[in-house]
Amino acid sequence: MVTHLDKQFSRRTFAESMVAGLALSSLGKIAKAETPPSSAASSSSEQSASSAKHLIIGCLVFPRQDQIDFTGPFEVLSRIPNSTVHVIGKTKEPVRDVMGLILTPEMAIADAPLLDLLLVSGGLGQQALMEDQEVLSLIKNQADSGRWVMSVCTGALLCGAAGILRGRRATTHWAAWDLLHYYGAIPTKARYVIDRNYISTAGVTAGLDGSMKIASILRSDADAKEIQLEIEYAPDPPFHSGTPETASPEVIRAFFAKYGQVKKSREAEARHFARKLGIFQT
Amino acid sequence: MVTHLDKQFSRRTFAESMVAGLALSSLGKIAKAETPPSSAASSSSEQSASSAKHLIIGCLVFPRQDQIDFTGPFEVLSRIPNSTVHVIGKTKEPVRDVMGLILTPEMAIADAPLLDLLLVSGGLGQQALMEDQEVLSLIKNQADSGRWVMSVCTGALLCGAAGILRGRRATTHWAAWDLLHYYGAIPTKARYVIDRNYISTAGVTAGLDGSMKIASILRSDADAKEIQLEIEYAPDPPFHSGTPETASPEVIRAFFAKYGQVKKSREAEARHFARKLGIFQT
Repeated sequence: MVTHLDKQFSRRTFAESMVAGLALSSLGKIAKAETPPSSAASSSSEQSASSAKHLIIGCLVFPRQDQIDFTGPFEVLSRIPNSTVHVIGKTKEPVRDVMGLILTPEMAIADAPLLDLLLVSGGLGQQALMEDQEVLSLIKNQADSGRWVMSVCTGALLCGAAGILRGRRATTHWAAWDLLHYYGAIPTKARYVIDRNYISTAGVTAGLDGSMKIASILRSDADAKEIQLEIEYAPDPPFHSGTPETASPEVIRAFFAKYGQVKKSREAEARHFARKLGIFQT
Repeated sequence: MVTHLDKQFSRRTFAESMVAGLALSSLGKIAKAETPPSSAASSSSEQSASSAKHLIIGCLVFPRQDQIDFTGPFEVLSRIPNSTVHVIGKTKEPVRDVMGLILTPEMAIADAPLLDLLLVSGGLGQQALMEDQEVLSLIKNQADSGRWVMSVCTGALLCGAAGILRGRRATTHWAAWDLLHYYGAIPTKARYVIDRNYISTAGVTAGLDGSMKIASILRSDADAKEIQLEIEYAPDPPFHSGTPETASPEVIRAFFAKYGQVKKSREAEARHFARKLGIFQT
């Protein structure tokens, strides 16, 4: 469990300054926080009459996900004042991301509390969870409760399998974007897309942009901007090759030479879900 | 150990396509790779006559670092064709980043092989390592060997304590930037700065930009661009508050209300090192 206030106050070097800092800035800002997207959030046991509600955030991690789908948003979400971030897995066993990085959940799905925000990562490992009822129920129940769901990259396809994309505007990794309609979504080209209590982001690193936005919604623009300054998020890549619109034909060809088989597999999966969810017959 | 080729070929869904993909793109590109910055790299046992040398990358992780100083570059570096990334700690015990995320080293410093690139993260935990001879020797030996050192954020201060900043252009987190001269560096304002075999980046998320650059140097522009497309690195933050030049006075004030004590502590540390390294008397 990663609790913003607890951790800050327990730090040796930060302790004194944080007391001043929170008094001067964070606690003051909490008063500006926006309300949750739905009155359903009022059922949370942490809910108070004021907007200084302690926020409970859960990030799902799973084998062969893309680690930065999680660690990017974690960098921002863990800095939201008066919040706790839980790293949640099917079990508490460490998992490896698609490139081998060890990610360690500290809570099992079965033990997860009511969440104000559930983060759903993507990456190749998403495919192995598309029929996992525990994961799909976690996502569906979260969405149905009116609390926030955020997907990064192909985490949107997991949200699709959970049935929450139907009729919702959504985005995902550019190379999977044309699959969204199979899940009943209204595919929308943007770095992040908000439809009611669901925010989806484009591929991988877009989770950073989306989590900046959700931080501003859950707390305030001022809090999000302070986080941005702290993590010096003023990106300036040395190349402009991050989308198919800006990448050269050679780079796109090289990408699809590797990704082609995955693409086919995800297409078959999407057709299956279109039938299963009754979106349309294919 | 995270080996690009090994992992790719062991993936079920990726296996077939990767064989085609590597033949079509990655292996072809390796021929374009630039040479290491110094002939010292020739002593590596992995060195071959061609530029298709397998690259060994090491990322130092430590308690209370900033996790994305490492996970940002990991996202890019782990995708460099024909490379292995080692996650290195003082021991193999898991550590927690400054916001509580568990990071798990898989190799102790004592067991680290010759590295083509050493990544040095920053974050509050950097302060506890400023007199750690094992860490400082790792950095100094790497720099002296002529192989690459990359620092992210206040990882530059660790490089300073190791004595490798003297006479080198360097950057760091904007709020620590004015401390660089105490370590004998030539402070340079940029998202990343390269001076001989040392690349330093600005704060936290700048590691993503710097690692895109180093990927292009270690392999090729084409490889870096393909990685950028894969991770859809086309950042578009919802706010423009990532530097003191763009943030509002209120946001900067709020930041320093929290950071003030750390800043003082880092200043005292820097003065100590200026004396110790004989840079100047303060």
